[in-house]
Amino acid sequence: MSSTERPATVSSLLGSISDVGRDAARGGYSRPVYSTAELDLRSWFRDEAQRRGLEVRTDRNGVLWAWWGPEAQDSLVTGSHLDSVPGGGAFDGPLGVAAALAAVDVLKARGVTAGQGRRSLAVTVFPEEEGSRFGIACLGSRLLTGAIDADKARNLKDAEGNSYAELSARNGVDPRGLGADPEALSRIGQFVELHVEQGRGLIDADPISGGAAGTGFPVAVGGAILGHGRWKFSISGQGNHAGTTLMADRADPLVAAAQIILAVQKTAAARDGARATVGRILPIPGGTNVIASKVELWLDVRHPDDAVTAAIVQKIHGQAQIAAANEGCTVSLAEESLSPTVGFDMGLQRRLQALLPGAPVLDTGAGHDAGILASVVPSGMLFIRNPTGISHSPQEQVEEADADYAATALADVLEGLL
Amino acid sequence: MSSTERPATVSSLLGSISDVGRDAARGGYSRPVYSTAELDLRSWFRDEAQRRGLEVRTDRNGVLWAWWGPEAQDSLVTGSHLDSVPGGGAFDGPLGVAAALAAVDVLKARGVTAGQGRRSLAVTVFPEEEGSRFGIACLGSRLLTGAIDADKARNLKDAEGNSYAELSARNGVDPRGLGADPEALSRIGQFVELHVEQGRGLIDADPISGGAAGTGFPVAVGGAILGHGRWKFSISGQGNHAGTTLMADRADPLVAAAQIILAVQKTAAARDGARATVGRILPIPGGTNVIASKVELWLDVRHPDDAVTAAIVQKIHGQAQIAAANEGCTVSLAEESLSPTVGFDMGLQRRLQALLPGAPVLDTGAGHDAGILASVVPSGMLFIRNPTGISHSPQEQVEEADADYAATALADVLEGLL
Repeated sequence: MSSTERPATVSSLLGSISDVGRDAARGGYSRPVYSTAELDLRSWFRDEAQRRGLEVRTDRNGVLWAWWGPEAQDSLVTGSHLDSVPGGGAFDGPLGVAAALAAVDVLKARGVTAGQGRRSLAVTVFPEEEGSRFGIACLGSRLLTGAIDADKARNLKDAEGNSYAELSARNGVDPRGLGADPEALSRIGQFVELHVEQGRGLIDADPISGGAAGTGFPVAVGGAILGHGRWKFSISGQGNHAGTTLMADRADPLVAAAQIILAVQKTAAARDGARATVGRILPIPGGTNVIASKVELWLDVRHPDDAVTAAIVQKIHGQAQIAAANEGCTVSLAEESLSPTVGFDMGLQRRLQALLPGAPVLDTGAGHDAGILASVVPSGMLFIRNPTGISHSPQEQVEEADADYAATALADVLEGLL
Repeated sequence: MSSTERPATVSSLLGSISDVGRDAARGGYSRPVYSTAELDLRSWFRDEAQRRGLEVRTDRNGVLWAWWGPEAQDSLVTGSHLDSVPGGGAFDGPLGVAAALAAVDVLKARGVTAGQGRRSLAVTVFPEEEGSRFGIACLGSRLLTGAIDADKARNLKDAEGNSYAELSARNGVDPRGLGADPEALSRIGQFVELHVEQGRGLIDADPISGGAAGTGFPVAVGGAILGHGRWKFSISGQGNHAGTTLMADRADPLVAAAQIILAVQKTAAARDGARATVGRILPIPGGTNVIASKVELWLDVRHPDDAVTAAIVQKIHGQAQIAAANEGCTVSLAEESLSPTVGFDMGLQRRLQALLPGAPVLDTGAGHDAGILASVVPSGMLFIRNPTGISHSPQEQVEEADADYAATALADVLEGLL
């Protein structure tokens, strides 16, 4: 785009991808990493970045970098992800990417140029932030920082049995190159991720207007990311015929699983600030007229205090063992991932607050690539108001005025930091 | 086969199909109707029937008929099915088909010939007995007898979205011809289905030997088939982010589903002779880090008294409504199929008992094509001992000696009835 063109709005950028990866069955969007939908979004990103004169490169871990100014150490980096959960909303991920592109336009309109007398600016897109396809959230940033073993990542399998190594290779990323990339990290002087808020913090911070667009605070500065882990329960019982097996003769793992689901809710509800969820359960074989022989059940737990997260999981595990034993079943528990509570860089957080006067500071229960990067480079986050407070759902929402405001807020921050 | 060949044993016939449709993931066999595995078994049946000089025809509903003697009204018919539940055993279905083929050999060796001075004999194979692919058990016999509306059957969809009409057409059965077939039914003078027992009746009837092969009663005569219904619960809540949504702000349909699963178990356990099962549950969208927006859950209920079955479902429905309301969710219930308790033809039952002296009479909780046919033609069943008492599982078992004995028992019955 030439500097005389009108800056693109965030809402128009999001409008141009609003048909990509719609999920007719679940509603909303299903854009798993390296699916046709996510690849279409990556192409869209490359085109939009190139239209702005940015140079796009893919690093060893499949992260896209669009450079404004020379690729250099200690640059300012912003970005998010384009993949989604199954049946997710339109903003989780793409809002941060579209806001970054639009912020480049705003900066250009203001006459601010990265890389000329200022630091370079890069816009990034991370793969598999949601972990919807390979089970581990923030997989791209975990690989980049070395937070996950590269061999473990290469061997992760999706539901169809494809390994992450195979999928990477099929999409032009040599799987032998996956893993910690200190050279790429050295280019990040500061990282700022803008993201739709995934709860009610900005609405509740503004009780008078109730969060209506054009009022109150449309943006918050990230305080901390709650510790977060995923575990998998495997409950084994006795598969049998649903019609011929008397109730007293059963060892039904789905009955034990039901008790575990209730224990999860009860245990988390009893702890201030805890969130524990079972959103995925798989009875095997899964026939209507068959008592299951095995049930797999995934547990998601988050709390600001990592010791409390561990205690919650331990308590649920104990109750699961009792429930399984009562049903004549056995249960095992495996940790799939665990991230401690992350406090963002305090210096950067204060700069963000100074650049966005009046913006409240909000902690979040959601994991983000910025949280993974925070362990190795100064990182921060901006959250944009979500009037439903709902995310990972088609009902996730951002008012058009707030979405467009996101570009200005991010541009203010980037201009101040460049 | 010439009349001088040695009769095939049931175990050798089953041995020849022991590699077809093995399920590496679940164990046992997955042979859904019109899958490669079930089509291979149908070919195997055609070949074995033709080797015995039987003439094989496929009727308007995809039922295979192998005729010994001319196709005629009031013939003697025996048979079962070749499809399986996901991860099922080797005997549920194929035992009755293999025993019928081997019984033909036994009759030939005895010099008994159907169709010559005696009635004709037909061996049948029914499609979709398990309902594993299209959700309705005994679909072939329901269509044949008009127990299901042909349009409803044509429009049934499998998990991939294929309709039963499409699958039928693809396999040489004109879907326009599906439905009640009085002409085919008029050929059935009596129907006898031999089947592996799917519970512990024959073991418990013989407390001294504990059901070891060569002792006690390896065969029982069917008394009644318990009434049986399938229902589907749909529970709607609020899909949301697992990390950002406080426990108090949730409307989690999987928590309500867990309470329903426990209500199912408790309600059935409180009623003598009742069996109620949830073996299949589907959270939508089904992500680890997503509070489900909807859960679908299937219920299977059986009781000898149809009024009790109805009362059980009503009670569970009431408890489901309370559970859903407590979680801020809504629930709906749809009946998918309902079959009343079937008493077999008393005259035929007495003949079977007379032909198999000492065989106990056993009711069964499992549905069978013979139970569907019983509403229009005199039908009966024989059950062969299962030392594990387990069915719809890889652990379903029949001792080799009992399997081979099944051919003799069935031959005795067929010779007596021809």
